Amino acid sequence: MREIAVIGIGQTVIAEHWEKSLRVLAGEALLAALADAGRERVDGLFIGNMLSGPLNHQENLGALVTDWVGLRGTEAVKIEAACGSGGAALRAGLLAVGSGEMDSVAVVGVEKMTDTVGHQTTAALATAADADWESAQGLSFVAINALVMRRYLHEYGWKHTDFAAFSINAHANALSNPNARLHERISTADYNRARMVADPINLLDASPIGDGAAALVIVPADDLRGSGRPVITIAGSASATDSLAVHDRRDPLWLAAAADSARKAYAQASVGPADIRVFELHDAFSIMAALSLEACGFAERGQAPRLALDEQIGPQGRVPVATRGGLKARGHPVGATGVYQIVEVVQQLRGEAGDTQVPGEPKIGMAQNIGGSGATIITHILRAN
Amino acid sequence: MREIAVIGIGQTVIAEHWEKSLRVLAGEALLAALADAGRERVDGLFIGNMLSGPLNHQENLGALVTDWVGLRGTEAVKIEAACGSGGAALRAGLLAVGSGEMDSVAVVGVEKMTDTVGHQTTAALATAADADWESAQGLSFVAINALVMRRYLHEYGWKHTDFAAFSINAHANALSNPNARLHERISTADYNRARMVADPINLLDASPIGDGAAALVIVPADDLRGSGRPVITIAGSASATDSLAVHDRRDPLWLAAAADSARKAYAQASVGPADIRVFELHDAFSIMAALSLEACGFAERGQAPRLALDEQIGPQGRVPVATRGGLKARGHPVGATGVYQIVEVVQQLRGEAGDTQVPGEPKIGMAQNIGGSGATIITHILRAN
Repeated sequence: MREIAVIGIGQTVIAEHWEKSLRVLAGEALLAALADAGRERVDGLFIGNMLSGPLNHQENLGALVTDWVGLRGTEAVKIEAACGSGGAALRAGLLAVGSGEMDSVAVVGVEKMTDTVGHQTTAALATAADADWESAQGLSFVAINALVMRRYLHEYGWKHTDFAAFSINAHANALSNPNARLHERISTADYNRARMVADPINLLDASPIGDGAAALVIVPADDLRGSGRPVITIAGSASATDSLAVHDRRDPLWLAAAADSARKAYAQASVGPADIRVFELHDAFSIMAALSLEACGFAERGQAPRLALDEQIGPQGRVPVATRGGLKARGHPVGATGVYQIVEVVQQLRGEAGDTQVPGEPKIGMAQNIGGSGATIITHILRAN
Repeated sequence: MREIAVIGIGQTVIAEHWEKSLRVLAGEALLAALADAGRERVDGLFIGNMLSGPLNHQENLGALVTDWVGLRGTEAVKIEAACGSGGAALRAGLLAVGSGEMDSVAVVGVEKMTDTVGHQTTAALATAADADWESAQGLSFVAINALVMRRYLHEYGWKHTDFAAFSINAHANALSNPNARLHERISTADYNRARMVADPINLLDASPIGDGAAALVIVPADDLRGSGRPVITIAGSASATDSLAVHDRRDPLWLAAAADSARKAYAQASVGPADIRVFELHDAFSIMAALSLEACGFAERGQAPRLALDEQIGPQGRVPVATRGGLKARGHPVGATGVYQIVEVVQQLRGEAGDTQVPGEPKIGMAQNIGGSGATIITHILRAN
């Protein structure tokens, strides 16, 4: 497959956007990415979104968005893989350019989650889990992750407070990200006394939902050689699945799909964990940040909290994660998240990450997007050339 | 892009499957297609589905289905383009094989629509239209199509009864299709006295919803040369969009996305309408059958009913359509329909279409899948080599 580069990025603030509809949000991010790329058209549009049907009474987003931004007629489709929809949309777009059928593709992740009534959003998020064997038993999505976290604490002997460092890092990094949902520094004391959501997951373990959109423009890398523009290529791209229901896995504390997709992406890029200078991981809950770090080879099993406690996950650390706030503080508009992650890795590789810029001109970054409690995982590795 | 062939097909009966869940339906079709292909594994799975979120409380179908059929770990994703989801899933799978990243792909279309309460399904189907400018005004999906049909009758001077031939053909062809939803021969008199749904669309203009799944296995065509197996290649594949809201189009009676995608697919396959020996079109409503025939060059504008009245759309006619019953009588499990269409074209090209086999060993067939009232349209041309 031919080599492909990201030439444009765009994003909206993640917030409660009462005044902006789904198409307006998607359009803002897409037009920003096109402007950044210096393009007016693309051959195809891939939209990552999970919940537009139940929450916005709108499907067929491909036609919705192309028409709204003045690209009526352009091929477009929606890609869904629960909270992994954004990463999956990039991968589908990548394969389209890789096939040679398209010479430019825009990828948009969009979600509008807050304009709903009562428990509608919680019920909609539960569709990421197994409806027959998990949700129907009364397990909300956060409750599933709470069971996983409790098991982790039991197996490896950590205390809940040992996870504080993940959330503290994310909140600190979000302070200088103007697009982040939360701008609030937190302390270990704040973390320890946060309101319980589903024991042991409290409010400061959990990422906030939100409305937002992020977008990318990708083209064959050869189009950019000699153009003077930075060439940030997608050096690795892989996706893998696991059982939807967590109880069906041999080991509920091992993200097999994270390990599989990371292994493939590392091989494609000819790199290993030690080469990754920034890692935008899927910290929907602090426990998921830990499991991702372990599955991707950044920590031994059961030892990821040590990495955080030793301050190795900050922008100056060995494995900078959530450098723009992560899901925890930048926010988690579910189908858009995977695209925000890529946008943020590109910012780091361009040296445009402001106060949380990883030092030393990082050349290689990774993003990992998770759909369900580890059921669909998409890993991308980007390289600045 | 390398040439790609369909080597396996599978389908379930379309019915009210009270005893079968979404995953069971998808699994049955997928395992049948794998058996037909003589394969046990694929590199990727692309699932066409529109309404699993609102109707089945289940998203993340990629992980759901791969695990259920014993392919845990395999890359998988859901593709959504309203009622065009099945065709869009095939196109995404085709690009994946075309890119060289995957050497075999399964495409599954699945929808389970009848296990719901009250008007839930009607509301869910309305998400194919423009939520802000159509659905929110109280227009159901059938009502939008009724406005289009009324305009057509007004502009071109046809009477409602002139559309009877489309439905009569579909119902007649479904009689010998064991997987069809309806097995009921109808007459012009039946059509004329059918209960009104949204004037002028009556019950015999409209396709029935249903539960069902269909599946394909595709591989590079070179894998089959000299194997003795029939080589049915995908000679053309294209997708295009139009405005979501019908009132935003310059001409509500012209399916621009059908014309665009058909033009591209014809060019790729180096054929024209006269070469197409079987055309599985998207007759969700009889008016859509007429508009598709016109946009794809089989009839002059405003003249498609003449083709039907002259008995040119039956299996022995000039343009056989709905040869296994079409959406009208085979049934329309929305996200699965586009895959059923391809399965049926393959049956025709293999000479396995039974009583409604198009005579003379047809070599070229076309399928056109429509999402929304013409908003997303995917056209595929298949060739028997």
